[in-house]
Amino acid sequence: MNPDQNPSCLLYGPQDARFEDRPIPTLDHPDDVLVRIAYTGVCGSDVHFWLHGGIRTYVSESRPLTMGHEASGTIHAVGSAVTTLRPGDRVAIEPGYPCRRCPRCKLGRYNLCPAMRFAADPPATHGTLSRFFKLPADFCYRVPDGIPLVDAVLVEPLAVAVHAVRLARVRPGDRVVVFGAGTVGLFCAVVAKEFGAGVVGLVDFLEGRLRFAEGLLGDVGRVVVPELGGSAEEKARGLVGRLGLGEGADVVVDASGAEASVQTGVFSLRMGGTYVQAGMGKREIVFPIAEVCEREIVVKGSFRYGAGDFDLALHLVAQGKVSLQGFVTNVFPFESATEAWETAKRGEGVKTVIEAPTS
Amino acid sequence: MNPDQNPSCLLYGPQDARFEDRPIPTLDHPDDVLVRIAYTGVCGSDVHFWLHGGIRTYVSESRPLTMGHEASGTIHAVGSAVTTLRPGDRVAIEPGYPCRRCPRCKLGRYNLCPAMRFAADPPATHGTLSRFFKLPADFCYRVPDGIPLVDAVLVEPLAVAVHAVRLARVRPGDRVVVFGAGTVGLFCAVVAKEFGAGVVGLVDFLEGRLRFAEGLLGDVGRVVVPELGGSAEEKARGLVGRLGLGEGADVVVDASGAEASVQTGVFSLRMGGTYVQAGMGKREIVFPIAEVCEREIVVKGSFRYGAGDFDLALHLVAQGKVSLQGFVTNVFPFESATEAWETAKRGEGVKTVIEAPTS
Amino acid sequence: MNPDQNPSCLLYGPQDARFEDRPIPTLDHPDDVLVRIAYTGVCGSDVHFWLHGGIRTYVSESRPLTMGHEASGTIHAVGSAVTTLRPGDRVAIEPGYPCRRCPRCKLGRYNLCPAMRFAADPPATHGTLSRFFKLPADFCYRVPDGIPLVDAVLVEPLAVAVHAVRLARVRPGDRVVVFGAGTVGLFCAVVAKEFGAGVVGLVDFLEGRLRFAEGLLGDVGRVVVPELGGSAEEKARGLVGRLGLGEGADVVVDASGAEASVQTGVFSLRMGGTYVQAGMGKREIVFPIAEVCEREIVVKGSFRYGAGDFDLALHLVAQGKVSLQGFVTNVFPFESATEAWETAKRGEGVKTVIEAPTS
Amino acid sequence: MNPDQNPSCLLYGPQDARFEDRPIPTLDHPDDVLVRIAYTGVCGSDVHFWLHGGIRTYVSESRPLTMGHEASGTIHAVGSAVTTLRPGDRVAIEPGYPCRRCPRCKLGRYNLCPAMRFAADPPATHGTLSRFFKLPADFCYRVPDGIPLVDAVLVEPLAVAVHAVRLARVRPGDRVVVFGAGTVGLFCAVVAKEFGAGVVGLVDFLEGRLRFAEGLLGDVGRVVVPELGGSAEEKARGLVGRLGLGEGADVVVDASGAEASVQTGVFSLRMGGTYVQAGMGKREIVFPIAEVCEREIVVKGSFRYGAGDFDLALHLVAQGKVSLQGFVTNVFPFESATEAWETAKRGEGVKTVIEAPTS
Repeated sequence: MNPDQNPSCLLYGPQDARFEDRPIPTLDHPDDVLVRIAYTGVCGSDVHFWLHGGIRTYVSESRPLTMGHEASGTIHAVGSAVTTLRPGDRVAIEPGYPCRRCPRCKLGRYNLCPAMRFAADPPATHGTLSRFFKLPADFCYRVPDGIPLVDAVLVEPLAVAVHAVRLARVRPGDRVVVFGAGTVGLFCAVVAKEFGAGVVGLVDFLEGRLRFAEGLLGDVGRVVVPELGGSAEEKARGLVGRLGLGEGADVVVDASGAEASVQTGVFSLRMGGTYVQAGMGKREIVFPIAEVCEREIVVKGSFRYGAGDFDLALHLVAQGKVSLQGFVTNVFPFESATEAWETAKRGEGVKTVIEAPTS
Repeated sequence: MNPDQNPSCLLYGPQDARFEDRPIPTLDHPDDVLVRIAYTGVCGSDVHFWLHGGIRTYVSESRPLTMGHEASGTIHAVGSAVTTLRPGDRVAIEPGYPCRRCPRCKLGRYNLCPAMRFAADPPATHGTLSRFFKLPADFCYRVPDGIPLVDAVLVEPLAVAVHAVRLARVRPGDRVVVFGAGTVGLFCAVVAKEFGAGVVGLVDFLEGRLRFAEGLLGDVGRVVVPELGGSAEEKARGLVGRLGLGEGADVVVDASGAEASVQTGVFSLRMGGTYVQAGMGKREIVFPIAEVCEREIVVKGSFRYGAGDFDLALHLVAQGKVSLQGFVTNVFPFESATEAWETAKRGEGVKTVIEAPTS
Repeated sequence: MNPDQNPSCLLYGPQDARFEDRPIPTLDHPDDVLVRIAYTGVCGSDVHFWLHGGIRTYVSESRPLTMGHEASGTIHAVGSAVTTLRPGDRVAIEPGYPCRRCPRCKLGRYNLCPAMRFAADPPATHGTLSRFFKLPADFCYRVPDGIPLVDAVLVEPLAVAVHAVRLARVRPGDRVVVFGAGTVGLFCAVVAKEFGAGVVGLVDFLEGRLRFAEGLLGDVGRVVVPELGGSAEEKARGLVGRLGLGEGADVVVDASGAEASVQTGVFSLRMGGTYVQAGMGKREIVFPIAEVCEREIVVKGSFRYGAGDFDLALHLVAQGKVSLQGFVTNVFPFESATEAWETAKRGEGVKTVIEAPTS
Repeated sequence: MNPDQNPSCLLYGPQDARFEDRPIPTLDHPDDVLVRIAYTGVCGSDVHFWLHGGIRTYVSESRPLTMGHEASGTIHAVGSAVTTLRPGDRVAIEPGYPCRRCPRCKLGRYNLCPAMRFAADPPATHGTLSRFFKLPADFCYRVPDGIPLVDAVLVEPLAVAVHAVRLARVRPGDRVVVFGAGTVGLFCAVVAKEFGAGVVGLVDFLEGRLRFAEGLLGDVGRVVVPELGGSAEEKARGLVGRLGLGEGADVVVDASGAEASVQTGVFSLRMGGTYVQAGMGKREIVFPIAEVCEREIVVKGSFRYGAGDFDLALHLVAQGKVSLQGFVTNVFPFESATEAWETAKRGEGVKTVIEAPTS
């Protein structure tokens, strides 16, 4: 390993990834730290980037970007004002720089900061798929002893789930249905259980993931393969019946982004229920707006994570309430990053992870 | 007038209204009162009933229903337990009977009561378009001196607006946009102003209504005829610019039910803004769900009115903060009810009202 | 047993209880049910009544009252409109009649109904210490199979705890301290745990109850005997240190009513923390108002229980999340009611229970 | 004027103020600005400092502090990253530096930041009673044209009032009582009116201030001199009657800090009402905790101001909803600062202001 270099995997365009040495970030702000990356997880959005070169904003030949935003590592160096972390500390990474000065930041919702610089988000902010990554000390979270760094990449999607379930205001006794059993959906179901949900339904076509979910959810979990035929209203009626939800679900979280899930989800709610959109799919869908109106349903978008979400995610892990075991099913070396994306694209296993460059 | 009769206007099917004598309701519950109806207003849903025989549930030859749910009148008789009203009191009517015992009722949201019996709502509950109407005493609200009973029918759509603006959590200084300048939309704009909104934009094609709105809204009001061309995103950008909303609206209330308004409304919001659906149109529309997700927009359905809404509506009227003058543009005699619906269908004036039977 | 009689234990004044036959209540309202009482628990307020004849309002020679409000039993008869219960059903009782028509009731807070008629609350409403008790069907809650009726009297204090912890808005990960390990305090701690609290401190002088609590609270529980010396601020500093609460507790619930607990509790909170007063003691105390102001503490009173509290209490019991075993330490026959109150007065055991008349 | 100097008025101890030249702050952070102070207002806490040398923390011979925290001025210089302000801009000052990185800051409550450095707050942060003051650009707020800088010092106490009324969640139609008609109390009453309060009672002994308030509050205002005799409960009953509050106030804001006001205020509330402590007096008082419990009153401390409070204060001023005219009754030159404090101590006029050094 050349200690002066920062080997990185950059995307130049659709299916055009290149490995390059980039400069090691310099710690010019006293509150920042430099992390030696250990692992970077592959998210659905990474696959979308790999295939299309971006989402809404795109990389280009002239503005390539280092990929990756789900990451763990060890503290390599700390800025002069940092007192809470020391070199060698094992950390999970919250990969964004909010401005901390705009109304959204000051009102406590920095994930909505218009000036947010988020890892691997075009046009300008490089990601974690490199040897070193710089970020504010307060966006690093110590990983509990006993949790391997390879599993610690899961803290990021777990924080996504914590954010969604918090927005959904899941309360003890609530009947919750989660659509989509990818990493985020699985975690949404698990977090809803830890928020005290009395029933947690999980809906997906992939039976392997539903079997995995059954082990995670225990008594309150009820997994379901969705019906194919019928209207959204009919599907919802069937789902409510199969899950025993009585007058309907108190909360639905969609972590699939699928149009059919959104529609079925809205119809599955009781009067005044809450629907949270946590998964991304088509930008526009056919939507039962009259149901929302007549039954005073609340629909909320959930985007990334905000203040306290990583803290709670790690608290749940540290207390043993959420287990990270068994999610990581594939680990690729740094040089095989594109193979990792292709594997994730094929939907194999649950979470695919890429090692940081080791030499 | 035959004092033993209750002349009523019943709908038997699409464009099949009949005038009949029905029995006068008996005061068998000690907390109920009997109201001598003075006027019944025509709502957009009445027009829809007149044309189609119902909305979701329908009247029929074997189950006709007395029409009407926006009404004012005077107390005719009171049940034995009623202490707050006396015969002769002038009242506005909240035309529903919630069960008061289900979870929704006990949790303070009786408008979501699954057992709600609402005036003129098929299959079974007769409306106000008659001489007498029975309802619980706590659903009658005294009309302030100086407000004519013909204007008091407007308290019902004003309560609809109060409910929507409360759900929207309009706060002092907020930038609010209302789509649709019908009675409810006009009142939503006025109520938002009284909730302290710093800007109230009102969007409609009917310039006459916008002129009327300008008089109601004063300094904070900005009326706009929507652009016809362009995508919803482009229309929203134009609207935000014309209204000077900076990063976008804090709150959008749609009182139009029009698909284009819903779409433009969502795009007009700032990060984390709130959208309230108060108007009914198509049951399904094309909807920008990705915007909702990425910008953590909150979408809420608003349905009728609930606890305290009529109280606040009448408080605003009594304090002179909301004026009812000028809304009622047409008054028809009881016998011309169908003509009233046809007039409302043609969009003439603002609010059309039908007199109760006088003889 | 004389089937025409309703043997009852009435209080006529301080330490003047008399056993009398009273008429069996008649089911004149279609939504009411008649319960054959099985057991009535003894609450601290019963002891206060026994000693002083009332709290704020008092019984008298001319207006004696049947005692008791924590009760379980079986459905004896149901009103004509009751569809959810049948004779023989085993139920826990929510012992109040709200008016359902005042603003507090309609806004979802019937426990604040000024017209509430609560069991054994002077001047007029008789309690449950009798053979039969009449109440609305929706205020009876089916007891899960496997829970003995003698334990089902605990659902009432458990609902008190659910109400307090809900008001406190305990969230997953919160650090919670409960003062007082009586039945309500123990349940507050257990319910806080089920709401996901990361730490639940419980403070009491009675070591036996703390040992019992340790078994209930498991890993998150930390029981503490309070220090005697020092200022409230010093005691709080010590407590925060011993419990490892860092910047202070997120939530404090006082179930003791003791002045020293209130003071220490307020000082134990972090900036912006929440304090809930669930226990009753002196009507006025010395209170650190400047702490409340400078640290923006929220202080909430918690009174009885409201919509959904019994439902959640029974849900937690049914799912096995809250165990009722071991709380009932003394059971007295009906004729020994005064002995039961004296036992509770001496603080023996945890919960003392009185059997309904059996003959 | 020596352009290299920063004449300042420092407090060394009780009644020991000294005028000194201090260094002009250097703009070493790119987001900071340097303000040329125009005026500094005198707050009750300044008087307390002048008399006692501090509140909880104290100045000393070895750690003197520049006084002052209510201030207005013009931008003198801006840091390299500042794009929203230019030299010459007239601004009101929010005189604190939160850390922006702790949980309180990130959750949107920076006024509770444990690391907050607030102007003139011992041990270390100098105040505004000088020629120059440095602060973050986002803590400067442009003053609307037509508002003199001498009145702009009032934006600070107005922001205190906005914060308190927001915490109180005053809603349209609410019946609000404010205790204390000092600058903050007057503004609380005015802001409550602008939040739509249906009744705003204002209680004080100083009749001159009540007369001034009547002009500000118009129709909804009802000013009251408190009764001297009777218990707090009796005083409250009298107050509720005189103000016509029916079942009691929805909201009470205490801006007096007086023990009798706190007690009367709590008893004046309706069931479930909200009490906000905005004024500081004795650190401990006798407090009716049983009332709080039995009537589920919510007591909230209000401390300074947080995100959006200055923005809304200036919005209300800019829209003409809140007038600043007539509050400033005394203006002293810089050299007479101690005389200004003595004048404020005697309660003369409403707001006393000190000019910045002019030479």
